[in-house]
Amino acid sequence: MSKYWSDFVHQLEPYVPGEQPKMNKLVKLNTNEHPLGPSPKVLEVIRAEADDRLRLYPDPDSAQLKEAIAAYYSDKGYGVEREQVFVGNGSDEVLAHLFLGFFKQDKPLLFPDITYSFYKVYCGLYQIDYESVPLDDELAIAVDDYLKPNGGIIFPNPNAPTGRLLPLSDIERLLQANTESLVVVDEAYIDFGGESAISLINQYPNLLVTQTLSKSRSLAGLRIGLAVGNAALIDGLNRIKDSFNSYPLDRLAIAAGAVAFDDREWFDKGCELVISQRDWLDGELAQRGFESLPSAANFLFSRHPQHSGESLAKGLREQGVIVRHFGKPERIADYLRITVGNPEQNQALIEALDTLL
Amino acid sequence: MSKYWSDFVHQLEPYVPGEQPKMNKLVKLNTNEHPLGPSPKVLEVIRAEADDRLRLYPDPDSAQLKEAIAAYYSDKGYGVEREQVFVGNGSDEVLAHLFLGFFKQDKPLLFPDITYSFYKVYCGLYQIDYESVPLDDELAIAVDDYLKPNGGIIFPNPNAPTGRLLPLSDIERLLQANTESLVVVDEAYIDFGGESAISLINQYPNLLVTQTLSKSRSLAGLRIGLAVGNAALIDGLNRIKDSFNSYPLDRLAIAAGAVAFDDREWFDKGCELVISQRDWLDGELAQRGFESLPSAANFLFSRHPQHSGESLAKGLREQGVIVRHFGKPERIADYLRITVGNPEQNQALIEALDTLL
Repeated sequence: MSKYWSDFVHQLEPYVPGEQPKMNKLVKLNTNEHPLGPSPKVLEVIRAEADDRLRLYPDPDSAQLKEAIAAYYSDKGYGVEREQVFVGNGSDEVLAHLFLGFFKQDKPLLFPDITYSFYKVYCGLYQIDYESVPLDDELAIAVDDYLKPNGGIIFPNPNAPTGRLLPLSDIERLLQANTESLVVVDEAYIDFGGESAISLINQYPNLLVTQTLSKSRSLAGLRIGLAVGNAALIDGLNRIKDSFNSYPLDRLAIAAGAVAFDDREWFDKGCELVISQRDWLDGELAQRGFESLPSAANFLFSRHPQHSGESLAKGLREQGVIVRHFGKPERIADYLRITVGNPEQNQALIEALDTLL
Repeated sequence: MSKYWSDFVHQLEPYVPGEQPKMNKLVKLNTNEHPLGPSPKVLEVIRAEADDRLRLYPDPDSAQLKEAIAAYYSDKGYGVEREQVFVGNGSDEVLAHLFLGFFKQDKPLLFPDITYSFYKVYCGLYQIDYESVPLDDELAIAVDDYLKPNGGIIFPNPNAPTGRLLPLSDIERLLQANTESLVVVDEAYIDFGGESAISLINQYPNLLVTQTLSKSRSLAGLRIGLAVGNAALIDGLNRIKDSFNSYPLDRLAIAAGAVAFDDREWFDKGCELVISQRDWLDGELAQRGFESLPSAANFLFSRHPQHSGESLAKGLREQGVIVRHFGKPERIADYLRITVGNPEQNQALIEALDTLL
């Protein structure tokens, strides 16, 4: 606390990320990182770029990376141009910029009551009015609940920490009904089981889609996020970015991010591993009495009718297995969010659970 | 332009960085990059860190880098603790956070009328009231002009684009007279000829010092900036950072930045080269009739009584030599800001000028 702080800083409640423990030998299943490392071609380009050119500023537009992203989605048939792509220092920076650039409105921003907890932190940072919309009884997003006056709508798809996927048809229904404010679909986990709403950006000027390279592209350590939408939305984001930091992505991240989109074989293999391991883990948990929500993400959101979430998280931790336990709100107090790891990690989780049940 | 933008976005006037041309073979003396590459030890650690660990999030506290910075300044006798250090994605991000965290006040922020032009852009982004204070007749900062009601004071030292250094005694006088608001000294160029005000942070709780690794540490391509001040100020910055992006520095930047502070021999050698080349260039320019302000930075701010700044910049460009010409305000319309390059680049600049004079 300091008298030199701006007034609102005293009231800020910052986001608390999942722990990044410094101990080794932990089975770390708490922050939804990918069980495989990045593509060897990504590592190769980083080593090749690590030379005297680091004395020079990077391209402030990160054109190489934007082109790789546009090419990736255009090859899927979505017709994405470079001018429809924005990139930032992790999707958290992209989200921060879009909250400031689009959601400072007279009417409240809407997002689910159980969702990525950074959303309300951004609202505190930029003093944005918001209203949280309860998930339904199945802990799913019901798009009809968002059909009311608002200054914007944002939700992850699949939602976090539930892992539940909203079908594209529901998103399209929302876009058609809600044309006067922006709808942001935060697709941090989309590659593990959903179809991207990027396929809709050329039809809906009120749609912006965000993604990250931290999950399905195994680059949490490099900090790259992106947004795709129509050029006027991207232009708004660029105005914020160019008023904040001209060079948010460094030379290594620009080059490495582009290769991460180019090496589709490595990407597909990694997603397949996560999906097959998620199925295995889901089955093993079910056999032990766990109830898991249907997940389209690289984690499971699971509870056990006879054991509290708190006691399970604590018991796992004592055995060196870390999962995420949120504790609140009440409706999810007994759930654990368990990242799908590699086969050895998932096996270790199951064995540790067996000593607790 | 889009109806989905927040209102203030329409009025934003983003910062325009110096051009990063994609052509090779240019003599690029326009963005104050270091003529030497980073330390070979920095490159080595980047290559060593480029492995499977990139799938994992970095340390959100960047402890390794903060400790290297604290150790560097403690060895100079300044007594800096890790809790007195903040790091960010380039000093532009650090500056953006401190504008929001400290300068949203009822009274106006003060900064020089001729200075780093990003300051007024941050004021636009966060809707901060400001007043610019004219440089004196020698284009120097006169601290007495800042002794009036204010919500904060910021200036670069040495100032940019003038290169003029304010002695520490003047800064101390300002800190003693201005105790009710924060004074930020932006030391992007301090290592090329000044003494850091970090030596004063334990005496003055109203002082925050920012620096960058983009200039004297040859890492513009990697995006690392820092702030040093008392722990309550750093705590305020951390609250902003943790409400914006938990992981602003990637794994490679944290490791590389730490080594850049550890390898003092490379750093000293690089600063000495710049200083000796600055002296040489200053002399050559003077022989040709140029008037340069006394520079403590890695650039010279120079004009020629018989030639307009615009015509010189244009003539140089036609010969593949790029320098920065601001054009306005009127008082500096004829000045060129010339980055001190390596001996070959500086020679090429002089030869190109000789064809124009």
